[in-house]
Amino acid sequence: MPGISQRGILVPASPIRKLTPFADAAKARGTKVYHLNIGQPDLPTPQKALNALKRIDRTTLEYSPSNGIKPLRDRLTGYYAKFGIDLSEKQIIVTCGGSEALLLTFLTCLDPGDEIIMTEPGYANYISFAVTAGVTIKTVTSRIEDGFALPSVVDFEKAITPKTKAILICNPNNPTGYLYSEEELHRLRDIVSKHDLFLISDEVYREFRYTDAPYLSALRLEGIEDKVIVVDSVSKRYSECGIRVGMIVSRNELFMSSVMKFCQARLSPPLLGQIVAEASIEGTEEYSRECFEEYKDRRDFFIAGLNNIPGVYSPMPKGAFYTVLSLPVDDAEDFCKWCLEEFSYKDGDTPEGFTGETVMMAPAAGFYSTPGLGKNQVRMAYVLKKEDLARALLILGKALEAYNGR
Amino acid sequence: MPGISQRGILVPASPIRKLTPFADAAKARGTKVYHLNIGQPDLPTPQKALNALKRIDRTTLEYSPSNGIKPLRDRLTGYYAKFGIDLSEKQIIVTCGGSEALLLTFLTCLDPGDEIIMTEPGYANYISFAVTAGVTIKTVTSRIEDGFALPSVVDFEKAITPKTKAILICNPNNPTGYLYSEEELHRLRDIVSKHDLFLISDEVYREFRYTDAPYLSALRLEGIEDKVIVVDSVSKRYSECGIRVGMIVSRNELFMSSVMKFCQARLSPPLLGQIVAEASIEGTEEYSRECFEEYKDRRDFFIAGLNNIPGVYSPMPKGAFYTVLSLPVDDAEDFCKWCLEEFSYKDGDTPEGFTGETVMMAPAAGFYSTPGLGKNQVRMAYVLKKEDLARALLILGKALEAYNGR
Repeated sequence: MPGISQRGILVPASPIRKLTPFADAAKARGTKVYHLNIGQPDLPTPQKALNALKRIDRTTLEYSPSNGIKPLRDRLTGYYAKFGIDLSEKQIIVTCGGSEALLLTFLTCLDPGDEIIMTEPGYANYISFAVTAGVTIKTVTSRIEDGFALPSVVDFEKAITPKTKAILICNPNNPTGYLYSEEELHRLRDIVSKHDLFLISDEVYREFRYTDAPYLSALRLEGIEDKVIVVDSVSKRYSECGIRVGMIVSRNELFMSSVMKFCQARLSPPLLGQIVAEASIEGTEEYSRECFEEYKDRRDFFIAGLNNIPGVYSPMPKGAFYTVLSLPVDDAEDFCKWCLEEFSYKDGDTPEGFTGETVMMAPAAGFYSTPGLGKNQVRMAYVLKKEDLARALLILGKALEAYNGR
Repeated sequence: MPGISQRGILVPASPIRKLTPFADAAKARGTKVYHLNIGQPDLPTPQKALNALKRIDRTTLEYSPSNGIKPLRDRLTGYYAKFGIDLSEKQIIVTCGGSEALLLTFLTCLDPGDEIIMTEPGYANYISFAVTAGVTIKTVTSRIEDGFALPSVVDFEKAITPKTKAILICNPNNPTGYLYSEEELHRLRDIVSKHDLFLISDEVYREFRYTDAPYLSALRLEGIEDKVIVVDSVSKRYSECGIRVGMIVSRNELFMSSVMKFCQARLSPPLLGQIVAEASIEGTEEYSRECFEEYKDRRDFFIAGLNNIPGVYSPMPKGAFYTVLSLPVDDAEDFCKWCLEEFSYKDGDTPEGFTGETVMMAPAAGFYSTPGLGKNQVRMAYVLKKEDLARALLILGKALEAYNGR
């Protein structure tokens, strides 16, 4: 049998799904599992977008242009203008989700062996895309005791080598929920400017901020206009992750024309998703406000609840819908597995038909590159309704008691 | 400004779209352009599929599983069974079009510097995916005077080195329309078996065959079950290129589990397209028969017409909806450009509102890797209705006369 490639071996399995077989087994035993491990928003897609889907009356579902349908790119320029970002539709390329946007950006900016700097804990799939592109990831560590703030300039400069081509940030951050301040973004601007690097900014959670300060996109940083690449997506913003519509936004013409060649090779992004996305962008302000209020409410409730559990510490995230928290255990992965394999909580409120309840969390070690870091941490997403979050908090407390009392 | 990657420079622009600016300029001058250059089927998508699109009544358009929705994979096992291919749904992974299926297959089978052998002329985007994956393409040449039959075993073995990991075929072939015989496929089986290689078979045109012989999929070749990977797509089959639904099919478990890790990183294939694809597969036999008859009729008409033009030679393709033909010119690319830049034909049948008419073709040199080959050849797709094909044939004849009479 011919062997598969080294990269096929090295590409990591998703840390978010690693424990899925244990969760499946728990469900098979009749246990209700509260999924705090995944960032699939539970809110409905805007009705306006669903209506657009119903109204599609094409007779041939043909290829769309390789850079996406123009009406969608036109709408997006209007969307970005609201954030003070002045763009032409030619500075936007539509991709198959933020995932393809990331991969194409890596492929276009970096050659095999080149280095990209990101903060850890970081979005685990960045590592998969780096392996795919043959790119080396160097991490600088953000720390729970600093609320996962941007590491210092000294830390970044220690990581820079002649092979460094780009710094990658996620703002607001997945997995930590941290929202970078203006001052931190200016620090990043100075570093990429001094070392002539690309700044790749993953801004898919731009809409999810729990502060009154205006959002500062990397596209608004002055003096590095030709260095900034923004990766974006409508997935989380309009609760339409399945349509696979993301985008690459940049003012660097050489970069964009090269991305376009990769895009032509894969022919086109998904047509139906683009029609839905186009309808999602305008006239959905009320939808966005309702989402925002729902998530803010959940965040306040959930983080307070976590910090009320003895030994648990979560910083207060200012964006996205995740938090990385520390648990009073030595090995969070072992605890997460134990919750699914050994633990099942039951009381009078356990929903009928279930033998008990437990929680599924993502062990945070998979979001760090430095071995040993994050061992007592987990990532949680608060994309469940408040009653379920309340129940999950209760069960987590009971599970910790039982685990530590074994 | 930070420089882009070498691969970003090396990935070729699409040869099919290379002349698009000239076509746009011709259209701006009022010339009607007959597009023989692209393989976008003009037939309607099956009504059953369009109805399924109308009936989608989900409230959240959420991520689908990374390997695709199970009902679609279940339907596909039924589809393959009709071709005598016995599969479980676990041996199918749904991708974002045949394009993603190809890229993920390259990434999983080959490391940078590894070699893949394909026949030339070949589908141009294979080269883009190879550059993306850092893989070296070695070509063996199929010749127009042999009707683009499979090159000899000797030719293949000359191209094999210790770095060779796979042979890639497209059957029926894009761009030549050639359909491999059972004997040719057995020859390939013996080569991959002897040298322990993967056989990657791109079968997206499986449905388009103009012969009574049953189709032999690479998945039916005995003794190399763990070596065969089939790349497939619903795009051409149901005239739904825009929905971006393709698939990787293989019985090699190690390969499939590795592909799955890449798939988890990109989260999921397009949900809406999968729902449309699922509805396309069953109960569309009449649609398929009508398509087949339409394309067969076009092929017979178009190839006969081409061979009636003095100096033009096209083999009779037995599959797909392309042909590579030779023209009585030294430099087909120059001729194709001239047709768009300098030529415009007008007579009493020229549609009202147009100043004249011309044809757009894809110069075939872009489908060869060996420099100098295919210089007098073009690829044409017969995806226009018969009246338009008739008009395109007339105009091509007039253009050749005028070009050679300059």
